[in-house]
Amino acid sequence: MDGQASGHAALIAELSDWLGERISTGASVRDLHARDEAYAAPHLPDAVVFPESTEEVSRIMAACHAHRCPVVPFGIGSSLEGHVVPLQGGISIDTSRMNRILEVHEQDLDAVVQPGVTRKALNEELRATGLMFTVDPGANATLGGMAATRASGTNAVRYGTMRENVLALEVVLADGRVIETGTRARKSSAGYDLTHLFVGSEGTLGVITKLTLRLFGQPERISAATCDFPDIGAAVETVILAIQSGLPLARVELLDEVQMRGMNLYNPDLGLPERPHLFLEFHGTEAGVEEQVQSFRDIAEEFGAANYAWATKTEDRTKLWEARHNAYYAAQSLRPGARGVVTDSCVPISALAEAIRRTKEMIAEAGLVAPLVGHVGDGNFHLSILVDPEDADEVARAKALASKVSHVALDLGGTVTGEHGIGSGKMAYMRDEHGDAVDVMADIKRALDPLNLMNPGKVVEID
Amino acid sequence: MDGQASGHAALIAELSDWLGERISTGASVRDLHARDEAYAAPHLPDAVVFPESTEEVSRIMAACHAHRCPVVPFGIGSSLEGHVVPLQGGISIDTSRMNRILEVHEQDLDAVVQPGVTRKALNEELRATGLMFTVDPGANATLGGMAATRASGTNAVRYGTMRENVLALEVVLADGRVIETGTRARKSSAGYDLTHLFVGSEGTLGVITKLTLRLFGQPERISAATCDFPDIGAAVETVILAIQSGLPLARVELLDEVQMRGMNLYNPDLGLPERPHLFLEFHGTEAGVEEQVQSFRDIAEEFGAANYAWATKTEDRTKLWEARHNAYYAAQSLRPGARGVVTDSCVPISALAEAIRRTKEMIAEAGLVAPLVGHVGDGNFHLSILVDPEDADEVARAKALASKVSHVALDLGGTVTGEHGIGSGKMAYMRDEHGDAVDVMADIKRALDPLNLMNPGKVVEID
Repeated sequence: MDGQASGHAALIAELSDWLGERISTGASVRDLHARDEAYAAPHLPDAVVFPESTEEVSRIMAACHAHRCPVVPFGIGSSLEGHVVPLQGGISIDTSRMNRILEVHEQDLDAVVQPGVTRKALNEELRATGLMFTVDPGANATLGGMAATRASGTNAVRYGTMRENVLALEVVLADGRVIETGTRARKSSAGYDLTHLFVGSEGTLGVITKLTLRLFGQPERISAATCDFPDIGAAVETVILAIQSGLPLARVELLDEVQMRGMNLYNPDLGLPERPHLFLEFHGTEAGVEEQVQSFRDIAEEFGAANYAWATKTEDRTKLWEARHNAYYAAQSLRPGARGVVTDSCVPISALAEAIRRTKEMIAEAGLVAPLVGHVGDGNFHLSILVDPEDADEVARAKALASKVSHVALDLGGTVTGEHGIGSGKMAYMRDEHGDAVDVMADIKRALDPLNLMNPGKVVEID
Repeated sequence: MDGQASGHAALIAELSDWLGERISTGASVRDLHARDEAYAAPHLPDAVVFPESTEEVSRIMAACHAHRCPVVPFGIGSSLEGHVVPLQGGISIDTSRMNRILEVHEQDLDAVVQPGVTRKALNEELRATGLMFTVDPGANATLGGMAATRASGTNAVRYGTMRENVLALEVVLADGRVIETGTRARKSSAGYDLTHLFVGSEGTLGVITKLTLRLFGQPERISAATCDFPDIGAAVETVILAIQSGLPLARVELLDEVQMRGMNLYNPDLGLPERPHLFLEFHGTEAGVEEQVQSFRDIAEEFGAANYAWATKTEDRTKLWEARHNAYYAAQSLRPGARGVVTDSCVPISALAEAIRRTKEMIAEAGLVAPLVGHVGDGNFHLSILVDPEDADEVARAKALASKVSHVALDLGGTVTGEHGIGSGKMAYMRDEHGDAVDVMADIKRALDPLNLMNPGKVVEID
């Protein structure tokens, strides 16, 4: 990152007039908004604004539009493909002060929130109601950011991703207009589905300023477990058969032997065998969970599962899933100072065993350290290829491996990103995955953001 | 309908050269493609084509584009808002010969089909696999048409609508280009969600030529029942409490006393009491279904449910759900020769009792016959306001009632159409429901169909 000077002085002066201390051009604030969690080159915004309401976002957008200034919506910076890096400078719109839970409709199983609310903050607020919000990426991301990247996590196999859990949005468009994309009704056939267009649009079509989210009742009974397998193929085959049998698993996570070593290093209390593991959770009634557990054990034992450890107490379950959610950071313990080049393959479940087999072979050939974890009930798995960011050759080898792994997913009828999104990091795969559909995406981008001011350089290029 | 002459002679001559007998300008064929099931004025297409492949649809679209000729995709004509009426003439693309089930992936719980396959034909094909496709509007609609209108039906409360059950589409664009909107992977964050943009676009953005659909395993145990209630409010309160308790009802249908009378007239074997009814179905394991049934009965009995009739045998269940699926036709038995002006309110479930109470009051005030049925687990209910189509005053009163009922849904935070779509019949409500979001829809329409050739006059107007 060069120490580029702050541009857009007239706009910044105009915004400062009414935002006061809620606009910053200070070096440290700009630096915090120059990067995300990914291995991607940072770039400074010219200024960072901290709006507190939809009206303020609208006014900021209208001003940026008038001054032809690029904008990047910013949640908490936990994206993994350079999503929030202001590649062309401009204004970073930090939503952290838009962190109010506006409405909880217990009867309708939904909540209306501002975009800066984090997933943990929402669940904290919901605890007393007996309801829960289920989408859980590793980071304690903001809900606006999660909608923007179409995030998922460990519960998606049972409860869906942000695609299924966002009922409606309020969005500020590139020119400052404010729209609502839907109602709180559970279904609708009234016109084009704008909600799903903005979910996953990564800030390139508008700024999400309000979300209506689906909630679920907390199950009567929850039971979690870990077990290990003689080899990774046996773990994968267990999952495939369980899913195909219609077992309503709430969570089913695969962690390979390399990842398990990282987790034991990161958290020595964990002390789990360094063999391929499944982390599982079962939700239902007392009787239902018992049935599920028995059915799962019958399948898993055919494939040599061993060392079941059950966690039925809340604190034990919390510890277990905290360990899983910290997998990305734990992976880095395998090589302190390293950063991860992350992959996000997702394939039809019938192709999962083949995809993982080929991926593991490629890691071995490349001679790199790359722990594997996966939301395997969805056919989704990640590598975190550990690299020394100063070692250009190693970085190049890691990127080549990531590319090969992504193409295996495409060859097997899958996608290069199950849940992380495109950002700038995966744009090179867009044509390979989508063919001419990319041109339709570009047409939509042009229609909604003709000046290319909304997070430019992400998802699709327009001229 | 006037006896307008066939236009677009040069285009039709060009298409006839290679389509041969699979293009028709005959009066009876054109007449069959001039209307749908709705109370909407018919209009003739200039010609009807019967393509058999994506390549043929692409070639037809390219020719229509070159000749600036409007096109209307046509499934089976069971839409209810004038969707398939060629308001500006042109070419009706009848997909009935694109009726092949291309792939069934039992392991991945999905199927790939052509758009002319009907929902019943798909389930017939699936029977031996133990899998099922769950979306079931009343008519035996085509799957292409169901995707285009974002249809649902009686199973949506448990298994979702077409929104949740279409995984990917192949679409021919206005100029003949062919795109794929996604892969068979269960989730993806790779760019804009084009699948959901085309689901519900009613043929105004492209022609659906292939669908990848989600399947479910047939449950181990199915149990269906009917029961009746002292008044409609009691039936609705039962449903609300059951949904809020998290009971995973597979089907829960409300039929008011007027509708029950129609059903008994339409099918005298049915012989059910002419009181407000719920038709129910429970899916799960043996033990799971038993638990669900018991929980439901506990709730229903608080509200005075009586006359439970259980159907556990397949043929009894089939009879029951056939009766429900024929509700639209049964309603017409109440007044032979009448046609239905249909409403499609959908509200948050907390507002359902209020919506139905106000709707029933309005029917009484209007002095019209309007049986009420509903997929009440989703908050969705229909009136079929019976009118003599020759009686202009009565038609006007029915439309005024429909408008008032639709506005009640909007007042209560809902939508004017839960599952039927906009077509031409509900365009007047678009701005009331969506506000300025309609402008964004129009921007998208302009971007994808700048010449306004795709089913013009439906969903959104562009200049």
